[in-house]
Amino acid sequence: MSYKNNRIILAEYTDGLPSAHCFASDLEIINNCAAEKVIIKNHYLSADPAQKGYMSKAANYARAELGEAMHALAVGEVVESRSDDFAVGEFVTDWFGWQVYAHVTTEKIIRKVDPDISPIKTAIGALGISGLAAYIALHTILEPGKGQTLVISTAAGAVGSIVGQLAKNIGCRVIGITSTYEKAHIAKTEFGYDEVVLYQSAGFASALAQVCPHGIDAFFDNTGGHIADTVFPLMNNRGRIAQVGTTAIQSWDPPPVGPRKERLILIKELRCEGFIIFNHTDCFPEAIEYLGQMLRAGELNYREDIYEGLGSAPDALISLYKGSNRGKTIIRLS
Amino acid sequence: MSYKNNRIILAEYTDGLPSAHCFASDLEIINNCAAEKVIIKNHYLSADPAQKGYMSKAANYARAELGEAMHALAVGEVVESRSDDFAVGEFVTDWFGWQVYAHVTTEKIIRKVDPDISPIKTAIGALGISGLAAYIALHTILEPGKGQTLVISTAAGAVGSIVGQLAKNIGCRVIGITSTYEKAHIAKTEFGYDEVVLYQSAGFASALAQVCPHGIDAFFDNTGGHIADTVFPLMNNRGRIAQVGTTAIQSWDPPPVGPRKERLILIKELRCEGFIIFNHTDCFPEAIEYLGQMLRAGELNYREDIYEGLGSAPDALISLYKGSNRGKTIIRLS
Repeated sequence: MSYKNNRIILAEYTDGLPSAHCFASDLEIINNCAAEKVIIKNHYLSADPAQKGYMSKAANYARAELGEAMHALAVGEVVESRSDDFAVGEFVTDWFGWQVYAHVTTEKIIRKVDPDISPIKTAIGALGISGLAAYIALHTILEPGKGQTLVISTAAGAVGSIVGQLAKNIGCRVIGITSTYEKAHIAKTEFGYDEVVLYQSAGFASALAQVCPHGIDAFFDNTGGHIADTVFPLMNNRGRIAQVGTTAIQSWDPPPVGPRKERLILIKELRCEGFIIFNHTDCFPEAIEYLGQMLRAGELNYREDIYEGLGSAPDALISLYKGSNRGKTIIRLS
Repeated sequence: MSYKNNRIILAEYTDGLPSAHCFASDLEIINNCAAEKVIIKNHYLSADPAQKGYMSKAANYARAELGEAMHALAVGEVVESRSDDFAVGEFVTDWFGWQVYAHVTTEKIIRKVDPDISPIKTAIGALGISGLAAYIALHTILEPGKGQTLVISTAAGAVGSIVGQLAKNIGCRVIGITSTYEKAHIAKTEFGYDEVVLYQSAGFASALAQVCPHGIDAFFDNTGGHIADTVFPLMNNRGRIAQVGTTAIQSWDPPPVGPRKERLILIKELRCEGFIIFNHTDCFPEAIEYLGQMLRAGELNYREDIYEGLGSAPDALISLYKGSNRGKTIIRLS
């Protein structure tokens, strides 16, 4: 069988923010399903802050290829299978890319998706890398303890919204950082935050200090930059920092300058660790089990910004760097 | 009995480099030994890079007091005792300060010093905080493995000279960074280094890359600043950095700027940890046992820059920031 595969391909690398001219539309014909392969019809595509890194010529842990469908996670349905392990009608999630169909070998497919646990789109949200990163970075790096103060940058984002709820379950005092009053309100009412401060306000540093009267024990950092510079001096001795994102910095070529942190790291014996979700696949089953139970029980709130149609994918991605998203950004295909 | 106690007191705080006018000479009379106390006659005083931090008004983990003998480690002999635990003639090490006599309560004395293991002055050198910091930071933070590449800034310094030998024992490829050809030669011939590069040379970055063809797995950082900026991009995935000193930076008030490291920490999943030796007293017995065995067997090389007389203490300290020391800087009292 033949498939008309509309794709959004990467047309141009950029070291700055993603923009529309980095992408192009394209039609590929998939003529038949090869042996040991499956054809997936994507239902939902993901837009993630990390994709900016894939589009950069600077060193990174993953890179999108020019002329190929933009490197992206997706969740879809098997529509044709020449694999014994995957049946037509099953749902799966993997790096299927920004395209309608994906013709892939099955061995690297991340996992099957059970629609009975929660809507399949959560496979790229609360049960996808956002939720997994939230759960795994929290537990492997931050060692949150009951009564400790945990600060999260991008409180209302796809990852932060989940970290807040998980940390609250543990008994932490959970402090968020975000951009608008509206997102602060959402974070407090839906995502378990005790307090949320606005990083764009003139009184950011003093507001943060005020809501952290006992200092900060752990910092889930999705932004770096000015926000991190404000958090670091408030860290307690033996504080932990998980560097999970750097969305506050537009370009790393060359690296921008900021206040040196060596002395704070030394005198407070801070521990700062980088985190890339794809290096922690061994923790996926535990995280999916925990998050899946919460979802099934209706105890995990999540928000989605849903963009309609393949053509909206670039806009969905660009929106992430404007701070306008509330929760996970998803592109729905018809 | 009465003691004429000559002291070098802290006369002035400074946020810059220590200079002679920060100190003053002073005579105190100790009239008698109080109950539960001992009087120590210091034999050797220590000059350590960390003392700059004690002299600063900026936040730090310890601070020297104006008008008091400069906060410093020392090793001395009990000359009068009203404690059941310490006998006249025993050697002890603690924060006895830059003075001839110390009249102290015994409960906080770090430890007794056995002159049969090695000369008592090693209690403030190879068997003091230099050796202890080398051993403990290496093992608790850097997790050095056989065949891994370990880089040490201040290769020929009091700490670095010991780290080099310990790492070589483990089977690491040991790379040092220092300031002069002479110190590089000493580090290679006496302290176990495989290669040493000079940070002041124009080709520093390329020289370092050349002697680390497989990247850097662990970085024992005594300097921070420009040196660390050059090391970080060469770190391997999951590399470890121990922040043990920041001697490359003269003043932290305000913190100077440097290239941001968030992205390198993230994409390489680096782990960066601060280390203050005084928070690791639980590891002292193991470290002293190991280092003492090496010293007794003649298998641990160390160098000392010995300054003569109490009055030379400020110069001894100032010398540390000129990079002119080779090994541990000690002030010998008559």
